[in-house]
Amino acid sequence: MKVLAPATIANFGPGFDVFGLCLAKPVDVIVFKESDEVTLEVEGFDVPSDPEKNVASISALALLKMLNVEVGFNMKLKKRIRPKSGLGSSGASAIGGALAVANVLGVRDKNLIIKAALEGEKAASGSAHGDNVVPALFGGFTILKSLHYLEVFKLDVDFELVVVLPEVEVSTRKARSVLPRDIPLGDAVKNLALASALISALKEGDLETVGRLLDDYLVIPYRKPLIPWFDKVRKAALESGAYGVSLSGSGPAMFALGEDLRNIGKSMVEAFESEGIRAEYFITKVGGGAKCSGV
Amino acid sequence: MKVLAPATIANFGPGFDVFGLCLAKPVDVIVFKESDEVTLEVEGFDVPSDPEKNVASISALALLKMLNVEVGFNMKLKKRIRPKSGLGSSGASAIGGALAVANVLGVRDKNLIIKAALEGEKAASGSAHGDNVVPALFGGFTILKSLHYLEVFKLDVDFELVVVLPEVEVSTRKARSVLPRDIPLGDAVKNLALASALISALKEGDLETVGRLLDDYLVIPYRKPLIPWFDKVRKAALESGAYGVSLSGSGPAMFALGEDLRNIGKSMVEAFESEGIRAEYFITKVGGGAKCSGV
Repeated sequence: MKVLAPATIANFGPGFDVFGLCLAKPVDVIVFKESDEVTLEVEGFDVPSDPEKNVASISALALLKMLNVEVGFNMKLKKRIRPKSGLGSSGASAIGGALAVANVLGVRDKNLIIKAALEGEKAASGSAHGDNVVPALFGGFTILKSLHYLEVFKLDVDFELVVVLPEVEVSTRKARSVLPRDIPLGDAVKNLALASALISALKEGDLETVGRLLDDYLVIPYRKPLIPWFDKVRKAALESGAYGVSLSGSGPAMFALGEDLRNIGKSMVEAFESEGIRAEYFITKVGGGAKCSGV
Repeated sequence: MKVLAPATIANFGPGFDVFGLCLAKPVDVIVFKESDEVTLEVEGFDVPSDPEKNVASISALALLKMLNVEVGFNMKLKKRIRPKSGLGSSGASAIGGALAVANVLGVRDKNLIIKAALEGEKAASGSAHGDNVVPALFGGFTILKSLHYLEVFKLDVDFELVVVLPEVEVSTRKARSVLPRDIPLGDAVKNLALASALISALKEGDLETVGRLLDDYLVIPYRKPLIPWFDKVRKAALESGAYGVSLSGSGPAMFALGEDLRNIGKSMVEAFESEGIRAEYFITKVGGGAKCSGV
């Protein structure tokens, strides 16, 4: 059995810890077979190959434990989403591992799958937030209203976007640590207006307006010292005709909406390179969420 | 010429300073005639009858001044929305006065009408916020993204609701003064999730879910000392089957969504009365915004 677990964009402009978008690519691939033992084989990007330390296998083991099922497995993880890229790499592997077990055991409860994936993410990275695992599982655009008692609003949307991936790292842990405990009420109101209007525009398929609303007062201002290239790359995208542009999760990946995505992507890559950072872009579209299939 | 200017519900649960809902009733009625002089006649609820002190006539004069037009008018204001009720009473009169002048002069620019109405509200009440004048003019459900450079997203919705009006006052000025400058980032995220999900549910016509999302972490917690009866009335509404219930603007009016609105309204009135506060309820529906017609 094989699971395809997709990359995701958390935050998506004004929706810190709430909005998530599932991408059609890249995807982590997990080949899974029941077994007497527990083995893990890894290829692609460099991640731990010890089953006790890899987020995919930890999530699979977590779900087995939750269900009190004692079986082992041989797992092969083809790691195709670059770790620490801001594209929900560990979230994808976590959903992939949990979904593989869920599928083998006939479990359909999304709440359980998410809980197992969060345990995997937490064990692997020290903290777990739902804004990557939720869109990776549900697909489309997700509004995460509550994680503890899972409550997700899913919007079925369909559009293309360009993602730019620079060769620089932003630690998620550090990106969280720079956030203040309190923020001005006025900034909360601004983001609330942006986020609400963005949902309205998304529902109407008005991508140009969605782009214009990709702004943020809650977290990006505080993260600016960690992403000194952000304004320059953003400007390059807008000058190339992007409807809007923002950071994917806590970065470093950025994404943009617009018509001529190829041209926008090139401009953003050039802006990164003018800052001495190598970067690449790819064009993708909204994805349908993690999927199981035969090998 | 006659203008009907409707009551409105600001905030609407999680949307502080952003969401607004236009009601079908009550409405202020403004009868307007060009003249050499400026006169004002008032009937209904007690408001200033000096044209320099009444929000409707100030707004009318403000628009005339903005347009550099020197004409006078005889205005008759039938004041039917109770002042200081939390139902946008001064906002309605402000829109009514400005719209009367706009109509006479053939002005269609909503930005101008809103600006004139805000001047009226500010002169009359000391502060001006767009969350009542905007839905009073646009009708339906409004997301106010930006007031300075007017940017409004309108949702055409159609549903009934019950409004409860207690005989108690909450000063808007005081209700603003108790708000902190800073709030926890976590609360901002909670409201952002509620507000985004509410817009999604509204667009789908899922009123039960809209009701469930009428919660707020940004302002109501700080205003609780000014509305000591709030929790009790809310509980009564929910126990009578309301989908959800909240404060209208800064109160004292409250509103609820549900099926048996009559029963819900009665329970809320009883809860107020058990606190020694007389109250009445009325059932209304979403309105289409201020309208001009012949006398």
